[in-house]
Amino acid sequence: MISIAIPKSATPLISVLETLIKQNGDDVNMQKISIIGLEGFPLVKTGDNLAKMIIETTKKESVSISDGDVIVVAQKVVSKAEGRTTQLRNVKPSERAEEIGKITLRDRRLVELVLKEMKRIVKASREILIVEDKRGIVCINSGIDKSNVPGEDSYTLLPEDPDHSAEKIRLQIKELTGKRVAVIICDTYSRPFRRGQAEFAIGIAGINPFKDYRGQRDLFDYVLKVKNVAIADEIASAAELVMGQGNEGIPVVIVKNVQRAELNGTFSAEDLNISEEEDLFKGTL
Amino acid sequence: MISIAIPKSATPLISVLETLIKQNGDDVNMQKISIIGLEGFPLVKTGDNLAKMIIETTKKESVSISDGDVIVVAQKVVSKAEGRTTQLRNVKPSERAEEIGKITLRDRRLVELVLKEMKRIVKASREILIVEDKRGIVCINSGIDKSNVPGEDSYTLLPEDPDHSAEKIRLQIKELTGKRVAVIICDTYSRPFRRGQAEFAIGIAGINPFKDYRGQRDLFDYVLKVKNVAIADEIASAAELVMGQGNEGIPVVIVKNVQRAELNGTFSAEDLNISEEEDLFKGTL
Repeated sequence: MISIAIPKSATPLISVLETLIKQNGDDVNMQKISIIGLEGFPLVKTGDNLAKMIIETTKKESVSISDGDVIVVAQKVVSKAEGRTTQLRNVKPSERAEEIGKITLRDRRLVELVLKEMKRIVKASREILIVEDKRGIVCINSGIDKSNVPGEDSYTLLPEDPDHSAEKIRLQIKELTGKRVAVIICDTYSRPFRRGQAEFAIGIAGINPFKDYRGQRDLFDYVLKVKNVAIADEIASAAELVMGQGNEGIPVVIVKNVQRAELNGTFSAEDLNISEEEDLFKGTL
Repeated sequence: MISIAIPKSATPLISVLETLIKQNGDDVNMQKISIIGLEGFPLVKTGDNLAKMIIETTKKESVSISDGDVIVVAQKVVSKAEGRTTQLRNVKPSERAEEIGKITLRDRRLVELVLKEMKRIVKASREILIVEDKRGIVCINSGIDKSNVPGEDSYTLLPEDPDHSAEKIRLQIKELTGKRVAVIICDTYSRPFRRGQAEFAIGIAGINPFKDYRGQRDLFDYVLKVKNVAIADEIASAAELVMGQGNEGIPVVIVKNVQRAELNGTFSAEDLNISEEEDLFKGTL
């Protein structure tokens, strides 16, 4: 509750104010999340300071940064800022890349990059190369991607350590604004059994990636046994709704008032990668 | 742009108004999505009219329903309203259910329900029963679930035809309020390769489940080849952030201003289920 001193002469305006406040749902107890795309974000180059760019853009666009906000940053701009872009013309394919290239019908130089960024091949077949990447993410081409990278044969690799990238941004925002935010680095992934891609959290700082209900009781006092929601992936997906994939140019999104997120403690997005042994779906595909 | 007549005496308040408007980001061009949980939603019983309950609750909670809103409704309340709840004590397990029950160590009566709701078993092993359900969703136990259902041996089955359930709610809201909304029925699912669950769209009305970028150009004029985002799943995940799983009691969420969603045409959530042949991940698990 915020109180504002209002001159008596201005009472006709009070109802206008009340309506505005109501419409915008600013009741602090209200379950309302805002997903705000930072428009006018500059193009990112190697060496750029993303935290500073985020703060400057929020100021320019009159978007506030508050304690508890979750700042979602597209992998693409993190990779660019960290110099994780590469040109195919500079890549020399190894013998193994030649071999896998023959099976997958992919450019051997791209295959070479994929192999360097992975732990193991999960599937190599005609036009498909699925791997477990260095960070433990099971995905196509180690997350190496062409879109929104300038240069005809330029690709981005995933950040070397996305949790570290997120933590760096989080700390700098804390230092420059005093605000305690959480940071999620997100990327777009194909999923088994479902058509179309969705956004996943690949790096996190200052947020528990899960909301664990196991052991808690439901509306009728039944103890929940399985529910452990991947809230960081859900926040990434929510952010993607304004972020987009094409020429929207909105690589940073601020998510406000995620009351269910635990925003203290040290966590890693690698916990979102389930081990083969634990994966209930083992043997289903 | 809305103009309000303000008495001259009230000019000190104009800056307060401006700040409020700015903070709440009501610039119509702004990429801001609001996810509003309908608190105070009554408990749902068989035969209840969900559309009416949604409209009444929005009024009580001073939440507007506008053209273009996406109304996300939890499967649980749709199933309850449609009488899709069942008691294990009324179920007689078949021979096959006895057999699968032995393998999975699950209650034979629950297994019987799962078998009745599926097309095929995808995996049956110790404590795991994954199927392709009648609607084409690959999931655990045909989506049959115990949480938030009153009664010790009561379970909900998924709605018989979730697209139809969504369309019914959409049409009734149109009739009762004149507003053209989209409706998504959502449920929580475990995913291969990822730890924790996320929310999927299992029924839709008035919304294209995909935002297809294939053939479009990125920031640097590169033609996108793969990106086809499952926007309905992402909206479901965004809604889950306020909906919750435990005793939150927020089964309906209104998502406002998803500018990227296509809100005309006839679509089905079944398109979100990819066929085995198309699934790039075939053979990976």
